[in-house]
Amino acid sequence: MFSERIERLSGSLIREILAAAQRPEVISFAGGLPAADCLPKLDFSGVPPHLAQYGTSEGEPEFRAAIVQELARIGLDIDASQVLVLSGSQQALDLAAKLFIDPKTPVITEGPTYLAALQVFKLFGADITTVQQEQGQLPPAKLAEAIAASQAKLAYLIPSFQNPSGACYSEETRRGLAEVIDAANMPVIEDDPYRALSYDGEAPRPLVTHLKKAPWIYCGSFSKTLAPGLRIGYMVASPELMPYLLKLKQAADLHTNRLGQWFNTQWLNSGDYVGHLKELQQSYKVGRDAMQKALETHFADLADWLVPQGGLFFWLTLKQPRDTRPLLKVALEENNVAFMPGEAFYAQPEEGIGHLRLNFSHASPERIEEGIKRLAGVIRAAQ
Amino acid sequence: MFSERIERLSGSLIREILAAAQRPEVISFAGGLPAADCLPKLDFSGVPPHLAQYGTSEGEPEFRAAIVQELARIGLDIDASQVLVLSGSQQALDLAAKLFIDPKTPVITEGPTYLAALQVFKLFGADITTVQQEQGQLPPAKLAEAIAASQAKLAYLIPSFQNPSGACYSEETRRGLAEVIDAANMPVIEDDPYRALSYDGEAPRPLVTHLKKAPWIYCGSFSKTLAPGLRIGYMVASPELMPYLLKLKQAADLHTNRLGQWFNTQWLNSGDYVGHLKELQQSYKVGRDAMQKALETHFADLADWLVPQGGLFFWLTLKQPRDTRPLLKVALEENNVAFMPGEAFYAQPEEGIGHLRLNFSHASPERIEEGIKRLAGVIRAAQ
Repeated sequence: MFSERIERLSGSLIREILAAAQRPEVISFAGGLPAADCLPKLDFSGVPPHLAQYGTSEGEPEFRAAIVQELARIGLDIDASQVLVLSGSQQALDLAAKLFIDPKTPVITEGPTYLAALQVFKLFGADITTVQQEQGQLPPAKLAEAIAASQAKLAYLIPSFQNPSGACYSEETRRGLAEVIDAANMPVIEDDPYRALSYDGEAPRPLVTHLKKAPWIYCGSFSKTLAPGLRIGYMVASPELMPYLLKLKQAADLHTNRLGQWFNTQWLNSGDYVGHLKELQQSYKVGRDAMQKALETHFADLADWLVPQGGLFFWLTLKQPRDTRPLLKVALEENNVAFMPGEAFYAQPEEGIGHLRLNFSHASPERIEEGIKRLAGVIRAAQ
Repeated sequence: MFSERIERLSGSLIREILAAAQRPEVISFAGGLPAADCLPKLDFSGVPPHLAQYGTSEGEPEFRAAIVQELARIGLDIDASQVLVLSGSQQALDLAAKLFIDPKTPVITEGPTYLAALQVFKLFGADITTVQQEQGQLPPAKLAEAIAASQAKLAYLIPSFQNPSGACYSEETRRGLAEVIDAANMPVIEDDPYRALSYDGEAPRPLVTHLKKAPWIYCGSFSKTLAPGLRIGYMVASPELMPYLLKLKQAADLHTNRLGQWFNTQWLNSGDYVGHLKELQQSYKVGRDAMQKALETHFADLADWLVPQGGLFFWLTLKQPRDTRPLLKVALEENNVAFMPGEAFYAQPEEGIGHLRLNFSHASPERIEEGIKRLAGVIRAAQ
């Protein structure tokens, strides 16, 4: 009865297990939710009545203009005609998959990479080749090798404060990767939802700004800095891709909800946005520092990690590698603590045995200390 | 560089031509927008602050419950677990296409049918067989023949006040179609966005309520009755389809914006919704009656039509059939009047030569009279 692609529709085993993490007694490092007290107030007084009517598929002109301004600030100079407003930046992955991926299309991702990108690319039939990060960088030579070996038609990269690894590639790495991508003249997707969550200085400018000829898509989100419940993201692309992406957007859901676009435009055009980001950074930095301290206390003999300079996650590498998926059940049911097993962030789970992703934006510093202590107990007992 | 499906991404020729219909001097019967003064006031005072946070992929529990109540009123008894809230009901077509359609999957639609459904189904590679409407009904025997001949794996039907034809199938036709679909045990999508816009009595209960075993999806929208700019629709499906549709929704855009869900929930749970629908019906009935009068005056010798008992459109069949697409340019550029060429509503345009779709919800009665007069002039001159 179903299409062939439904065989590749990923299971939601982890999602189901994590439903248990909703119990209030559980200290959850599993999700990636913004902290509730960092969310903006939902003030819709003054919303223009005509926003009740259908809007344009491209997005509201004022919002697209505000995005152009935001991107100029981080070194990405584009025209408003290159901005496509989306129903959250997850939609960028759906549209890009439709644009580029047939069954067996070779696609490159980082190892590890964003779980839901893997789900979409696999759904459309991508044959995924993983290039492993090394010490928080992605070696350009390894990318070149993987392109040559797989004849890749698309690369998907998250260069800044990556989910899940927290890695942020240096300016030099970005230049190197861009050169390799240009040489292959292969389309690249740069996913950049975490850039604004920086705690030790800003990320280098986007990788796509170093490209000279390869087609590109840059994905941005407001779900980490404003109100994710509004579902507002965007993609920016090289001009030759825009007519296709626009038609794909129309076919997917006609256009993005106008209320959320208006709300975000007010924030971007107000003097308050920069201050709001600073507050977010300060708040999440407290969580980052609390988790680093707790990890130093409880995990020094159990795992290695880099201190993330941005984003929402620590990424632990167990000194004695073992599949962490069975440990989640133990952690949750017997210790009331939740984490994300690292295996889920690899196209082939066996490529990434022995990692844990830990979110630090949700629990209080006290709960972080207690939860890390419990989690260390789980790991230690399993060794 | 692109996926194979991009070859099937429909052109937007008509869309481009219609951009010209935005000039204020043009009387446009081309679109399908709700009238501006029928839109609800965007009152978001009292919105709960937690709606800024991420929500569930299924949709807000209160909204799903309100939809269950609405559907019970029209004879469709379902459980809230069968409701999936969507970013507009267009998204139902995207998710259903992902669920059912591979390249060359045989799919049945009515002739004519909804333009954007054809675009999505074609994008995913559907091989579309058209069953022609006859005098505002879809003969069940013709559907049975088409299923047998095409080995169809899916049917897409709009039984109530169809866009574009305005047709509303009788209770008897619905029973007959359901029997044929059950006999084939073939999944069916019932798209029902126009039901509430009824001017001469309600539509019979949904076709899917007559099914005994075939899998089904029922698509509903609030874009015709509340605020389309919020992009809120839903699908309801037989239980065995729900786990797949939920995962496809997650992969597409995580979840639907929560503000719009809250707004619609307030309306549905208020005593005002039924009164609002009555006002809409009265307002659009004035337009429907004005267009019927104008057509009787100017088109009696040029075309045949049925008076639509609901929805937003008249569907004219020219007495001297000819391709209406070249006439659009003449109408727009020389006569400042716009319509939708009927050919666009057929999988194969040559299956539907000589129809015009005319919207009556947008222009005032005076403009309707003037516009129909101009349009008759265009048709007459072309004969």
